[in-house]
Amino acid sequence: MKNILILGGFGFIGSNILTYIDDFFPNNFNVIVFDKYKEHLHGLKFNCVSKVYYGDFSDELLIERILDENNIEFVIHLLSSTVPSSSTNVKFDVMSNLLPTLNLLNIMKSYNVKDIIYISSGGAIYGNDNIKHSEDDPEYPISSYGIVKLTIEKYLLLYSKLYNFKTLILRLSNPYGRFHYNNTQGICNVALRKALTREKIQIWGDGNGKKDYIFVDDFCKILFNLLKYGINTDVLNVGSGNLLSINEIIENVETHVPNLKKEYIEQSANDVVNFELDLTKLHNLLPNIKFTPFSSGIEFTYNWVKSTLY
Amino acid sequence: MKNILILGGFGFIGSNILTYIDDFFPNNFNVIVFDKYKEHLHGLKFNCVSKVYYGDFSDELLIERILDENNIEFVIHLLSSTVPSSSTNVKFDVMSNLLPTLNLLNIMKSYNVKDIIYISSGGAIYGNDNIKHSEDDPEYPISSYGIVKLTIEKYLLLYSKLYNFKTLILRLSNPYGRFHYNNTQGICNVALRKALTREKIQIWGDGNGKKDYIFVDDFCKILFNLLKYGINTDVLNVGSGNLLSINEIIENVETHVPNLKKEYIEQSANDVVNFELDLTKLHNLLPNIKFTPFSSGIEFTYNWVKSTLY
Repeated sequence: MKNILILGGFGFIGSNILTYIDDFFPNNFNVIVFDKYKEHLHGLKFNCVSKVYYGDFSDELLIERILDENNIEFVIHLLSSTVPSSSTNVKFDVMSNLLPTLNLLNIMKSYNVKDIIYISSGGAIYGNDNIKHSEDDPEYPISSYGIVKLTIEKYLLLYSKLYNFKTLILRLSNPYGRFHYNNTQGICNVALRKALTREKIQIWGDGNGKKDYIFVDDFCKILFNLLKYGINTDVLNVGSGNLLSINEIIENVETHVPNLKKEYIEQSANDVVNFELDLTKLHNLLPNIKFTPFSSGIEFTYNWVKSTLY
Repeated sequence: MKNILILGGFGFIGSNILTYIDDFFPNNFNVIVFDKYKEHLHGLKFNCVSKVYYGDFSDELLIERILDENNIEFVIHLLSSTVPSSSTNVKFDVMSNLLPTLNLLNIMKSYNVKDIIYISSGGAIYGNDNIKHSEDDPEYPISSYGIVKLTIEKYLLLYSKLYNFKTLILRLSNPYGRFHYNNTQGICNVALRKALTREKIQIWGDGNGKKDYIFVDDFCKILFNLLKYGINTDVLNVGSGNLLSINEIIENVETHVPNLKKEYIEQSANDVVNFELDLTKLHNLLPNIKFTPFSSGIEFTYNWVKSTLY
């Protein structure tokens, strides 16, 4: 049994990781969760979770207590207090994400915990263009969210160099799937939920920009394959390679719920319209990885969203 | 008369900029200085300076007061609380440099002051390698100092995009010259001073790594040429193109003071050993720029250092 700490364990990606452990590795991981909430807000239970610490990520003593009271072997950092679409409170971004992460790294260093997986963002880091971006491309984030993620990446690489941290930075594309309850971020899930509740779906811009979407189960499979093979290469793009426009997503949702109510609104200046990840490095590391077809992932997610409503 | 605010005006580069204004543009600029100190620590006086505000860069109300009380047209930001060679207090780096800079940008936005020149670092941004780096290269800073400078750059570019800031980011190489009083950073000046006071000069590593050095008067000339032509391109490398090893610098210093006392010590993990800037963009913008030969710059600086000692 490996003791792992998951920061933000009760969020969308965290809940999927915990469920993946329960389903496939019930005897491999003992998980300590740190989250804003004492328990999962929608009542999910996870067998692999032995302890929950809840509170503010900025609470330095609390974070230190977690490492002091548990023999943590590695950390998965999923926390973010902000979203890409807003850059109006840049100081809050830095104070609530960057500074607590630096604090975490210093505490990890003190307790000699040096393995960390950080979920970064493929969309928010590279900027807005039609180039297929590899991990070595220059980064031009167009949101404070993206800048903070990039800065955290740079500090992780610095700690790898200076203190021998083993850092795996996953620049994830847009995940969708079950256990997503947020009603503002994540177009696939938001569209499915609003379709089922007959609410109007807001579409930024003309809906023709194309981005990479990945089924969250595929992401979990990739994550645990990387862990299995002990891969801790520094920075890795993680996406499906499947580029879709919002209009195409809507068409897919309409195969389940016809005649959606749509409203086209102005593009947010902080959100990228197009982005594509170069996935060569991922495919070289995991040559046998298979991706769930988008229509199957949407069907699965549709059924899950429906189950939460009725 | 243009009203300009210089943050860190009494430091090494700031003092040179102020002297350059006094010498060449006495009727063009009215300067407001913000600095840690009430007056120049070594008694320098500048005719162009009409007002001095002193205090902590983190003092938000003070920074707001400066913009409120003066009709500032543009800002030159030279402040840094930390140095590249240390990364032990990363939270302090962020709190004392990044957060006050974000505060400055927000205040500038409120007061509709959108022109800013930021002195970044060519050496600390790109990382340690033997590649000639252009402005579009990926950045791999190996110090917290470099990460914070890079993060500030990214926010400046974000504010350019979101709020039409006109941002000129100068990625400067290693400047040397008069008005440099620091005894730890800046090998050319430190070597000259220690040569003259017969102190031992510490050399990191074997002293063979080569970096770009620029005479600070040349930097000032470049800066004011860019201003004259209204150039506010986003990111620009600024160096002389003259690569020198520390051993070569020492040889040059020894033409003035023979038989220096040297001590070779371990390389700092945070300091780059080699760096070269691709200066194509600079030369395209200012095709007629001439650089002071290193031996002349050193001679001039030698005479200045001597004048401060006797």
